[in-house]
Amino acid sequence: MDFEHQYHAYKALVDQYLADAVQETKPRSLYKPLTYVLSGGGKRIRPILVLLASEAVGGKAAEAIHAGAGIEILHNFTLVHDDIMDNANSRRGRATVHTRWDGNVAILVGDELLALAYRILLRTESPRIKDITSVFTEGVVEVCEGQAYDKEFEDRSNVSVDEYLLMIRKKTGKMVAVATEIGAIIGNGSPAEVAALKNYGELVGRAFQVQDDLLDVVGDEKQFGKMIGGDLREGKKTFLLLEALKRARGKDGLLLKGLVKNGGASKKMIGEFRRIFETSGAIGAAETRIRSDIDEAKQQLGLLKQSPAREMLFWFTDMLLHRTY
Amino acid sequence: MDFEHQYHAYKALVDQYLADAVQETKPRSLYKPLTYVLSGGGKRIRPILVLLASEAVGGKAAEAIHAGAGIEILHNFTLVHDDIMDNANSRRGRATVHTRWDGNVAILVGDELLALAYRILLRTESPRIKDITSVFTEGVVEVCEGQAYDKEFEDRSNVSVDEYLLMIRKKTGKMVAVATEIGAIIGNGSPAEVAALKNYGELVGRAFQVQDDLLDVVGDEKQFGKMIGGDLREGKKTFLLLEALKRARGKDGLLLKGLVKNGGASKKMIGEFRRIFETSGAIGAAETRIRSDIDEAKQQLGLLKQSPAREMLFWFTDMLLHRTY
Repeated sequence: MDFEHQYHAYKALVDQYLADAVQETKPRSLYKPLTYVLSGGGKRIRPILVLLASEAVGGKAAEAIHAGAGIEILHNFTLVHDDIMDNANSRRGRATVHTRWDGNVAILVGDELLALAYRILLRTESPRIKDITSVFTEGVVEVCEGQAYDKEFEDRSNVSVDEYLLMIRKKTGKMVAVATEIGAIIGNGSPAEVAALKNYGELVGRAFQVQDDLLDVVGDEKQFGKMIGGDLREGKKTFLLLEALKRARGKDGLLLKGLVKNGGASKKMIGEFRRIFETSGAIGAAETRIRSDIDEAKQQLGLLKQSPAREMLFWFTDMLLHRTY
Repeated sequence: MDFEHQYHAYKALVDQYLADAVQETKPRSLYKPLTYVLSGGGKRIRPILVLLASEAVGGKAAEAIHAGAGIEILHNFTLVHDDIMDNANSRRGRATVHTRWDGNVAILVGDELLALAYRILLRTESPRIKDITSVFTEGVVEVCEGQAYDKEFEDRSNVSVDEYLLMIRKKTGKMVAVATEIGAIIGNGSPAEVAALKNYGELVGRAFQVQDDLLDVVGDEKQFGKMIGGDLREGKKTFLLLEALKRARGKDGLLLKGLVKNGGASKKMIGEFRRIFETSGAIGAAETRIRSDIDEAKQQLGLLKQSPAREMLFWFTDMLLHRTY
């Protein structure tokens, strides 16, 4: 089977669902920016994971599409509010809501997106709808906690790698795990199948975030779609920076501490920090962690019965993780 | 039965529930302001309506307390975010979250409150949990729409009384109706009972808001707990102002148009506008509307079987509406 073709078919399905999901047009100050957000594209990773997880335990994609769309809307809620907090001007090549409209509009649009996420999730026909809604809700709680840690870490100079991993588990990993867990519940998976798919989501989510950190340093600018070295310029406490801080000694260690203290690096220092990340072993540590998370994630898939959807999840995992280099 | 005593017992129950509801303490930047919000008091009108509505159709208060607390947390979510959008510095005699901490903290605390509202609502044991969660969710959607209209109206000079009524139905009335409707569903009320209690909530919610507008003009500052004339100072498009604009002619009409154009009145003009509201018949129109909404709300209660909880709802309605004059 051609998985790439199947991926694009599912993506088109999700895009169409989202385009039809919101029929309201008034109040205009709310629904105009809201439809702007939902039409902004994206890879639709989470909804597609919902569909595949459901199918992998014997469910039908059509039963899982509502939850998939709900999780994608929830993801967009987090983006709109995070962009306010992070002062981000653009996202996916377009102005963010608070830039194009204003902060108040962006707060309200985010709130409404969260409400719509629940509305659309609740279209799901399942005897286990209470479990589904609870898993979804615990995801929202953890995403908020993850974002709070992320903002706290900006003001702290002594963040540990373990604290960082806790933060990304909540901020990034949890929502991927929510997608696969809910998909498995909708497909009426057994407790073991639900657990395997939940674990798979957590591992892939973490690998994905560590790889995002890695690509900022070693990625290809054109393919990655963001400026390389951006995290370094902002002094962002990524997996690489925290690993390098733990490992580097002497002059390199002092340079890293200076980076944290100054809250960022100058453009001409990017190459130097890339070298420190390499020689300190931080890049190797990131690569090892990504590889072991992905291996473990695939082991979780191995616990499921053989099926085309399971094969596509193997393929999807590699596609996500080899996205740029 | 002593309803006042019963009210305070229920209020204490809700306060205690909310104090115990959040066990998390980390990340501290999230949970410290969040518990600050939940311990801020308030009349706990909505949760008490949930309890009474449930009892009025034969349910038990203990089964409805989770939903009551969930709706109170949802209400607090709207307050935290509205206070950012409205630049409000204080609420219930304390600094607002975005004033005491900052705007980013307040955005995230509001988001987390919304998630916690769902978490606690979902503790409800009911075969109708999907209906309950849907009613709750439609409430969130409408509250966002109401707030969007409210902000839109600030920039418009031609708001009609009907538009205003639509806005307060969404922003204020809906959440009261959600409280009574959910209470009735949890108590396993018949469709007719659920409809009666839902209608009751909408009518009381609307009357409550129009009375809030009225008290700004004719209230007793000490009893009302807010500065009298505050709406006039800000040029807020209240029921009274919009009714007066519709009714006043000549010099009075020009003064009102000037008030809208200038976005507010000077302190020494407050008395003059109070006179215009009186002579134009706007105050009379507000009083008539409050009275007819309350009469209709009580008629809805009359459709229920006689019970102590129904009697207490009659009493509660009067207590809410006679709060200050």
